Amino acid sequence: MKYISLLGATGSIGTQTLDVIKNNPESFQLVAFSSGKNIELTKSIISEFQPFFVAVADKQDCDQLKQEFPSIRFSYGQEGLIEVAVYHKANILVNAVLGSVGLQPTLQAIEAKKTIAIANKETLVTAGHLVMEAAKRNNVAILPVDSEHSAIFQSLQGEYEKNIERLIITASGGSFRELTRADLQHVTREDALNHPNWSMGAKITIDSATMMNKGLEVIEAHWLFSLSYDKIDVLLHKESIIHSMVEFHDSSVMAQLGSPDMRVPIQYALTYPDRIPLKGANRLDLATIGKLHFQEMDLDRFRCLRYAYEAGRAGGTLPTVLNAANEIAVAKFLAGEISFLQIEELIEQAINDHQNIANPSLAVIQEVDLETRKKVSTLR
Amino acid sequence: MKYISLLGATGSIGTQTLDVIKNNPESFQLVAFSSGKNIELTKSIISEFQPFFVAVADKQDCDQLKQEFPSIRFSYGQEGLIEVAVYHKANILVNAVLGSVGLQPTLQAIEAKKTIAIANKETLVTAGHLVMEAAKRNNVAILPVDSEHSAIFQSLQGEYEKNIERLIITASGGSFRELTRADLQHVTREDALNHPNWSMGAKITIDSATMMNKGLEVIEAHWLFSLSYDKIDVLLHKESIIHSMVEFHDSSVMAQLGSPDMRVPIQYALTYPDRIPLKGANRLDLATIGKLHFQEMDLDRFRCLRYAYEAGRAGGTLPTVLNAANEIAVAKFLAGEISFLQIEELIEQAINDHQNIANPSLAVIQEVDLETRKKVSTLR
Repeated sequence: MKYISLLGATGSIGTQTLDVIKNNPESFQLVAFSSGKNIELTKSIISEFQPFFVAVADKQDCDQLKQEFPSIRFSYGQEGLIEVAVYHKANILVNAVLGSVGLQPTLQAIEAKKTIAIANKETLVTAGHLVMEAAKRNNVAILPVDSEHSAIFQSLQGEYEKNIERLIITASGGSFRELTRADLQHVTREDALNHPNWSMGAKITIDSATMMNKGLEVIEAHWLFSLSYDKIDVLLHKESIIHSMVEFHDSSVMAQLGSPDMRVPIQYALTYPDRIPLKGANRLDLATIGKLHFQEMDLDRFRCLRYAYEAGRAGGTLPTVLNAANEIAVAKFLAGEISFLQIEELIEQAINDHQNIANPSLAVIQEVDLETRKKVSTLR
Repeated sequence: MKYISLLGATGSIGTQTLDVIKNNPESFQLVAFSSGKNIELTKSIISEFQPFFVAVADKQDCDQLKQEFPSIRFSYGQEGLIEVAVYHKANILVNAVLGSVGLQPTLQAIEAKKTIAIANKETLVTAGHLVMEAAKRNNVAILPVDSEHSAIFQSLQGEYEKNIERLIITASGGSFRELTRADLQHVTREDALNHPNWSMGAKITIDSATMMNKGLEVIEAHWLFSLSYDKIDVLLHKESIIHSMVEFHDSSVMAQLGSPDMRVPIQYALTYPDRIPLKGANRLDLATIGKLHFQEMDLDRFRCLRYAYEAGRAGGTLPTVLNAANEIAVAKFLAGEISFLQIEELIEQAINDHQNIANPSLAVIQEVDLETRKKVSTLR
């Protein structure tokens, strides 16, 4: 039995994680979770899974839930997230919150020797050096949940890291893969939210359209697999069937494929190194699909990906700035305050304005993160 | 250092095995080999690799070589093949001979505790139960060299056999993949020898055109991976880039990809579980390839594949009959004695005429093999 604490239970990854737990009661038990402001869904998760501990965003919601579920412990805010992350009855933390808010809980969970299943890519982007150092020191496994990183992780089973030639991260191209930069002038929020292959949250869907999602994944892969950026390539593959690949120095390429279904990598992180059947899985049928397409990635067309490579290579606080600027810019776009192409303009400006700081501590990262958010909030 | 004995050194797999050995003198040494009647090539291999022991087909060639290379031991015929297979200085046998002549040397090498790298699929087709039983009893590894089985073997690294849902063996479709059965009435030997993706020996190229090669591979996979025929599928994939796949019960599919180059699976069998760089490898460039195609396999179009599934499922001596009939029918086609479609007619007739014998001994297999060859030789 694996005892699971889950950060971000009401999001897209969160609810699919609950689906996996629910379908395998003999393997998994949810002992603690956090949610945000979706209190109705929070209540229904509590009723169904009967966890011991729950954290929400606001004190008011917390107080109300305490009254309704007197046998369960509640907390709220950033402190609540950390309490879920280090909850004593859990042996694995699924971190599925959005944004760099997931960083501190992850670091604390690592110190508490929890295995980390990480879907929160911003944590690794903004402080990969701190997370991986802590994981190494505590001998804690960081298991990827992102479909691309899970594909790479699966492709690396039974292999030696020294033999890796390069990673090939596939990219669907997002909602606007067929559009030129000129076309992008006129796209709307609704256009951007219409992802061709994956049903995901709003932020990651926009990140897919700008290709920043792939940029964050490149930085995440750099940390997860300890590889230089020269060994991490991105390939356009519009069907999202090959989820990513590893090329070895003998020219052999290992890949993981499947119908797009996030429950596969979520469940693999929970069952690793074993697998269990996935209920209701949509089995891959390549004969029906007929064709898989591949295309070179154009870093001029998808500038956010270029910024991510540049920030990743520069290191220091620049990835923190990239990520914070992106989070704010996407929020502004979703709120209708800026146009689609302004997302990358704001990010570029934030990067250009920043004086990079090498090997930053957690305090420095948090300061730069906050500063960048403030600054980008005022940009137009 | 791995000490290698090689059966079938002058064939397609044999010469590519020598290429791998030559490029890695710090890892591999050729200590013994067999060849057939190509004495010029045999001499040049002896001069280059300086093995201790060599077997050829004929006594006359053997006697001549003894005079020319007095410091090297020579032998000939079936006895010579066995001496190479069990040669005391070798710890790995690469079996790259053609046809069921490879069976007895393989069985003897297993008893002599040699690791077996097997490219000779007829051995497993004709007597898989004997080979796998002997391998298990002697705790000897049977490592696949065929690109499809190597792909499956690579996809299974770090995985548990119990989690396998099915194998997906890819098939290029061979020289005639675009032709209907009506078109096949008129094809020539030269047409059949023109394989679109792989440069191989004549027999296997014809087997690819009839799809018998894939049928033999299905039976080979059944034995190598201990799976029922219901769990082994064949998928048309004309580019031969995905060399085969494994689907697990969580719906995740692992695959091995690469430019068609037999040196990759040969070298992997020799370095397993490690890998080493492959000199002059043609690296996979999916963006340039652009598209991969997949198509259902049609067992009415490719009847030899259907015969192979049927013979494999029936077991007993029927796979021996299938293989022996195919070897003779292909030889007759290559000699211009029968038409392309008569290959499958002869095989069908041999199968229909045979009284199956369950769980046959080596002696029974050899008898049935010989009998079938005689009978099919007289068919027209």
